[in-house]
Amino acid sequence: MSLGELFERHRDLLEQARHAVRSREFYSAYPESPSPRVYGEQAAGEGTAAYEAWLGADFPLHTPGARGVVATERSPFGPELGVRYPRVPAADESLEQLLSAARSAMPSWRAAGVDGRAAVCLEILARLHTRIFELAHAVMHTSGQAFVMAFQAGGAHALDRALEAVAYAHMEQSRLPSSVEWEKPAKREPQRMSKTYHVVPRGVSLVIGCNTFPTWNSWPGLFASLATGNAVVVKPHPRAVLPLAITVQVARDVLVEHGLDPDLVTLAAEDPADRLAAALAVRPEVAIIDYTGSTAFGQWLEHNAGQAAVFTEKAGLNSVVVDSTDDLSGLAANLAFSLSLYTGQMCTAPQNIFVPVGGITTEQGHVSFEAFGAALAEAVAKLLADDARAVEILGAVVNDGVRERVDSMSGRGGTVLASRSITHPAWPEATMRTPAIVAVDAAAETDYTAECFGPVSFLIATDSTEHSLDRFATTVREHGGMTASVYSTDPAVIDAAEAAAIEAGVSLSVNLTDGVYVNQTAAFSDLHGTGANPAANACFTDAAFIAPRFRVVTSRRHL
Amino acid sequence: MSLGELFERHRDLLEQARHAVRSREFYSAYPESPSPRVYGEQAAGEGTAAYEAWLGADFPLHTPGARGVVATERSPFGPELGVRYPRVPAADESLEQLLSAARSAMPSWRAAGVDGRAAVCLEILARLHTRIFELAHAVMHTSGQAFVMAFQAGGAHALDRALEAVAYAHMEQSRLPSSVEWEKPAKREPQRMSKTYHVVPRGVSLVIGCNTFPTWNSWPGLFASLATGNAVVVKPHPRAVLPLAITVQVARDVLVEHGLDPDLVTLAAEDPADRLAAALAVRPEVAIIDYTGSTAFGQWLEHNAGQAAVFTEKAGLNSVVVDSTDDLSGLAANLAFSLSLYTGQMCTAPQNIFVPVGGITTEQGHVSFEAFGAALAEAVAKLLADDARAVEILGAVVNDGVRERVDSMSGRGGTVLASRSITHPAWPEATMRTPAIVAVDAAAETDYTAECFGPVSFLIATDSTEHSLDRFATTVREHGGMTASVYSTDPAVIDAAEAAAIEAGVSLSVNLTDGVYVNQTAAFSDLHGTGANPAANACFTDAAFIAPRFRVVTSRRHL
Repeated sequence: MSLGELFERHRDLLEQARHAVRSREFYSAYPESPSPRVYGEQAAGEGTAAYEAWLGADFPLHTPGARGVVATERSPFGPELGVRYPRVPAADESLEQLLSAARSAMPSWRAAGVDGRAAVCLEILARLHTRIFELAHAVMHTSGQAFVMAFQAGGAHALDRALEAVAYAHMEQSRLPSSVEWEKPAKREPQRMSKTYHVVPRGVSLVIGCNTFPTWNSWPGLFASLATGNAVVVKPHPRAVLPLAITVQVARDVLVEHGLDPDLVTLAAEDPADRLAAALAVRPEVAIIDYTGSTAFGQWLEHNAGQAAVFTEKAGLNSVVVDSTDDLSGLAANLAFSLSLYTGQMCTAPQNIFVPVGGITTEQGHVSFEAFGAALAEAVAKLLADDARAVEILGAVVNDGVRERVDSMSGRGGTVLASRSITHPAWPEATMRTPAIVAVDAAAETDYTAECFGPVSFLIATDSTEHSLDRFATTVREHGGMTASVYSTDPAVIDAAEAAAIEAGVSLSVNLTDGVYVNQTAAFSDLHGTGANPAANACFTDAAFIAPRFRVVTSRRHL
Repeated sequence: MSLGELFERHRDLLEQARHAVRSREFYSAYPESPSPRVYGEQAAGEGTAAYEAWLGADFPLHTPGARGVVATERSPFGPELGVRYPRVPAADESLEQLLSAARSAMPSWRAAGVDGRAAVCLEILARLHTRIFELAHAVMHTSGQAFVMAFQAGGAHALDRALEAVAYAHMEQSRLPSSVEWEKPAKREPQRMSKTYHVVPRGVSLVIGCNTFPTWNSWPGLFASLATGNAVVVKPHPRAVLPLAITVQVARDVLVEHGLDPDLVTLAAEDPADRLAAALAVRPEVAIIDYTGSTAFGQWLEHNAGQAAVFTEKAGLNSVVVDSTDDLSGLAANLAFSLSLYTGQMCTAPQNIFVPVGGITTEQGHVSFEAFGAALAEAVAKLLADDARAVEILGAVVNDGVRERVDSMSGRGGTVLASRSITHPAWPEATMRTPAIVAVDAAAETDYTAECFGPVSFLIATDSTEHSLDRFATTVREHGGMTASVYSTDPAVIDAAEAAAIEAGVSLSVNLTDGVYVNQTAAFSDLHGTGANPAANACFTDAAFIAPRFRVVTSRRHL
């Protein structure tokens, strides 16, 4: 199939997605329900089998410059994955081979044009969609997400975010006409020129994956760079390789089928001791870097990869300001879910809950600070009362750091809700913890101004809502934040919260009491992060995330 | 006048400019001819008087954090300017006062909204336009540009580039709707939310001016940042302060007239020993940096100001590939003008002219390498034969470095055209030089792979046009280039040159033999630079130059 035909196959989808990112109305192209009614009776079983076939096997990928193999994955639910991937050592010779192959693949990809590249990207997404159950298992057993969440966040929603990036890339690259006739009036003859605008890539794009959302956080940058003509080297987190290995495999297959160079998309798996990301990030061939992970390495990239356009998502203090409510149980249930989902291991999960020490007004009358904490604790306890149900919300603890952080809260003064261990009925080796909630005073800044990644939140006693808003704005401006929310029945407080959120540079959700959660953003409508505070220097997805990934070369001549 | 009324006053202009940047057709809003028929009989005289009134005087500007004054300007045409500006020392206390004042000015500016900010920026441009003759003198006597060029490049064309930036900023900030109603289908009730998108600034924007084009190179970044809600600190080159002092004065006047904080736009003049730009560039308050100048400091900024979005224009090897022509005299005349204009002190002036050692085909038959050099030398000599006419093309040598570079070519082997000194009839103290052209072999890489800023070009003898194109692409890819051109009567060669230009990431002009010159770009149609090679990491003006200057904060709530 020619690229033109492939573009026609996906044209409607692209149009819909382009419309959606402009309108910001609800749009989703990939069903989020893993139900057999949607995906067919066979899909789930086939996906499980496909996933299990990788275990203990050599993953069939060619990576230029690779030497030997690595197997670095162990499921947070217990089992070793044992999948072996080509290993890229952080040695000059290997990096040169890898990056040289990537660069060599770019001219024909550039020549495929804006539509041709969009078509290939959309075909890759279509193929990934056919492997969504397999991907869901791969995400589950690398991130520790429960299956349904892995299917949704790691599959359907990640596909939506990738589609959003492809649509945005198509729009951005179409901003200038492909050519123009230019005529400048002059005394005698006008000056007339024909000008052609060529979109050119920046260079090699490095995508550095994270452990918790290997697809959702990596695909936007991957597809944004690929659609704008760049080659992409994917450096997965050593404990979350498989979802990105599948991604790279699909991409390379589609490229080859259309006569393109598969080395446009490569997997750079590492032995963690090699610190491969740092070695790649400062290479002169690397022109774009997308990164999700720790603040320390994100800042290192921002300050040391000056040759590249660097897009980072790091960490922050996600905040909730509680002023008043007319639905205390809705508030508590909503917040309890946000604290519990994936054991609070989302970069968007709330951590700092500001509540006036004098309590709040609710539809049930005045509720003291202590009573509010009790209501929240009860909502969490109720949500997770049944272990079999709880594990489908919690997933598993992704690493020892999270476990240690939550366990260190045990017996601490101010405990509103103690974390407990759960045994997963199906995966007895999994480390499972429920959320801890700890009450602290607003003056005890050191308790809550560092990110405590995992299922720990702080109920912070403030003097007043005004004090809460000040603490919220100040801490987020200084330390960053991916999300924020406010609960109030007073329009003036909501306005003040909105002003504080604008000042802090963080998006705000107001009075969430139903099925929308502060830690979830919807592709095509919500921006994930803002880039306006220290938690991230970019967001999914706006023009600033896309436009710097390509350049325009003009060719002009007299007519 | 309210901001709404001000917006109405400038609405048509904004619409025209927005249309022009999309269509890329010819557009200009500010007449480039200093003729009395265009600007009135009084304009020139009044502009001269206004300029002269500044000489030896205190420039009336308030800059927070300033201590005492500096006077650092001497005209390349001879006279000391003696204008005294508030001095900002590179001391923490001063920088904190300056940047704190800038930050404090931003909330009300954000609240003015996208239209309000565009209106204020367009009013500033209108006021600057009324002072175009004064600005032309200020540019002339700081850069060394001859008057007409200073009027055009430093006045009319700079205004066009500024308008382009304002129009682009308005477009980019309007990409998302201001709000949307979002409805996600669900089993029971759909989820319905109202979402509001707030444009928020990045922070303080630092504009670092250059000596040669104090307005043309600074205004795009200044107005792009201002229109997107940021405060702007303007750090002029110590020898080219006045044009930017006038700019800041006008901006502050307009801001005050509309009830806005004048400290949104400040002038940070320095004692050069203070290295103020370096001190400002790494401050945490500084979120955006626009820079034009040396490669060394540009690279330093790219690698050391990791907290900021850094837009740089540095230096490169502007190249001409000569294959064949059907208009040798047109070619020679066009190129002679490009080499001579402003004594080759444009970042876009050609330096490396690749010609096959075996000569080229022309409408006059075969022309040897030597004969081509002679034709070019003759064209330059003819263009500059009359001193009184020559000085209006050449302007003055801007600094000792340029003079030393061109003088060091004297008596060199391979000289095709020797530079000569001219005495300016009106400004006898001005340093004046005509271009030197030196023939070198393509193998003598060190001769031509460093930028030799000023009126020196190299006629580089290659084995063939293929060799020329290879040398062109390789040297520009490695060392950068702001412009490139090719002369050929063979469509296959032109195609190959276009491919080489795309590979090198530099824009290409083809067969310029008339009144369009490779060193000139037209706002609204031509991009200045590409950002795709080491000469610059950005261009004037595309979405990548604008979109990273602001962020969007979403506020969402249930309907």
